[in-house]
Amino acid sequence: MKRICWTLQVRPDKLEEYREVHKNVWPEMQQALRETGWHNYSIYLRDDGLLIGYLETEDFDAAVAGMAEREVNARWQAVTAPLFQQLAGKKADESMAPIEEVFHLD
Amino acid sequence: MKRICWTLQVRPDKLEEYREVHKNVWPEMQQALRETGWHNYSIYLRDDGLLIGYLETEDFDAAVAGMAEREVNARWQAVTAPLFQQLAGKKADESMAPIEEVFHLD
Repeated sequence: MKRICWTLQVRPDKLEEYREVHKNVWPEMQQALRETGWHNYSIYLRDDGLLIGYLETEDFDAAVAGMAEREVNARWQAVTAPLFQQLAGKKADESMAPIEEVFHLD
Repeated sequence: MKRICWTLQVRPDKLEEYREVHKNVWPEMQQALRETGWHNYSIYLRDDGLLIGYLETEDFDAAVAGMAEREVNARWQAVTAPLFQQLAGKKADESMAPIEEVFHLD
């Protein structure tokens, strides 16, 4: 299992909306994440809009590719895309570049 | 078990030194972390110096307080303090304010 961390940036004027949307992530979206290998997946939102994701997965590329094929993910991204900054034409899940792990203690 | 995420900022001219130091965290420092409740603890370093920590712990305040009492931690902080930006007189481990978790999937 690999431990993946990614960052994105939420628009400062959309923090509250981001929080609200993520209180009720659709069950079918949660199920799709589980089925495509997103485990122990947490998202953190800093006051300045920095968004941090942490998950454990066998293969992150496969997990992202798996979600990209799901219809529910397209619908979810359509809802959440306006909340992000600077995606430069990419979908949020295409911008989740893994950050270098420099330390780990089990 | 609570899932905690914190951020700090490494000086841009100290990224390589930070990486190197964390390749060989002293065994007694690792042992102190384990004994004071720092579990599944990972640290990630973004190219711009953003440092992200993730850990699981029963009680984060107790984990921080526990480390603050360890002599090895004082020695470790002395080595690593010059690598951080904007600590404003605080030690790094005093600046690890938990970030709000807005989503979790087991």
